[in-house]
Amino acid sequence: VTEPGEGAARKPYTTDALVDVAVRVFLERGYHAASIGEIARAAELGKSSLYHHVSGKEELLERGLRRAFDALFAMLDEHGATTGTAVQRLRYGLRRTVEITAQMVPEVSLLLRVRGTSPTEQWAMERRRQFTRLMTELVAAAQDEAGVRADLDPALVTRLVFGMTNSVTDWYRDDRPESVSDLVNAIERIVFDGLAHA
Amino acid sequence: VTEPGEGAARKPYTTDALVDVAVRVFLERGYHAASIGEIARAAELGKSSLYHHVSGKEELLERGLRRAFDALFAMLDEHGATTGTAVQRLRYGLRRTVEITAQMVPEVSLLLRVRGTSPTEQWAMERRRQFTRLMTELVAAAQDEAGVRADLDPALVTRLVFGMTNSVTDWYRDDRPESVSDLVNAIERIVFDGLAHA
Repeated sequence: VTEPGEGAARKPYTTDALVDVAVRVFLERGYHAASIGEIARAAELGKSSLYHHVSGKEELLERGLRRAFDALFAMLDEHGATTGTAVQRLRYGLRRTVEITAQMVPEVSLLLRVRGTSPTEQWAMERRRQFTRLMTELVAAAQDEAGVRADLDPALVTRLVFGMTNSVTDWYRDDRPESVSDLVNAIERIVFDGLAHA
Repeated sequence: VTEPGEGAARKPYTTDALVDVAVRVFLERGYHAASIGEIARAAELGKSSLYHHVSGKEELLERGLRRAFDALFAMLDEHGATTGTAVQRLRYGLRRTVEITAQMVPEVSLLLRVRGTSPTEQWAMERRRQFTRLMTELVAAAQDEAGVRADLDPALVTRLVFGMTNSVTDWYRDDRPESVSDLVNAIERIVFDGLAHA
């Protein structure tokens, strides 16, 4: 569908590219403050072209968040997350969460900031709680098999450990000297072995 | 100073109480989006009464941030932070940072969100970098004395460990079942001893 006087000389715009722009605008301006007009301008698209791709701001939020949630929940079905002892599965889950976070900094940042009452925000908060619950169960299972220390509340351990992985979104960028595997390595060593051990 | 028709039946308003309100409004709305009018309304003060206390929005930001920075930098002069081995001073600095963070969740949250270009925001970002540098030096000194593992970059260790303490602001509230000392304990054990040790 082409509109008169618009898009004739433009390269085709993908919905994915539009989601990239929307995620950036949401992070800069805040989801609630950002308008569909700002997103269209940032994407250099007319508003009506934008509406060929998505139904509106909430769909853009949902598509942005879905990237991160799809990656995180798909990870839970991977071989490393479903086989072995609980502590092996926990180590795998932690490493892959760090990888996904470092590879999807904008999407994970957006996910961490969701607070509101729209259906998409409610859905996102529920997905986030679900991920935390699954990780808490894994920590508890690892404690039961004596794979990790049992003197700390599993829900507290989960909050703190994934608080560390979440904090990566505050500073990690592609141009950092640390590679993703340096980051995975450092977090796994600190969390499992601790700074006091070599 | 009393204005006609205002404040006659009001209890005296302190600048500290006004800063409490401003910090809350900044967190809810974003510092840049928040207006002095909104802060005045949230404080149930007339705008001109507000200006008896502070010169404007930037002073409110500075006063809010100063609470957190004053506590963090004062901590660095405490006995525990200035005596003993580097690893003892690092453990002390970590424990006290967790305490200050848990006791000043709104102020530390605000500090973590500062991004802009106003003089106060620039000052806050520089103070934050300075704190991070001092902690990085302490991690490096602890590595030199073989008090902590030396196979990880001290700047990366500092970002990750203080990323964990910062993440406390996302969920810790006074009404949580975990006390501040539970939190301090859990973070110190995870960071120094690791989950794999008991």
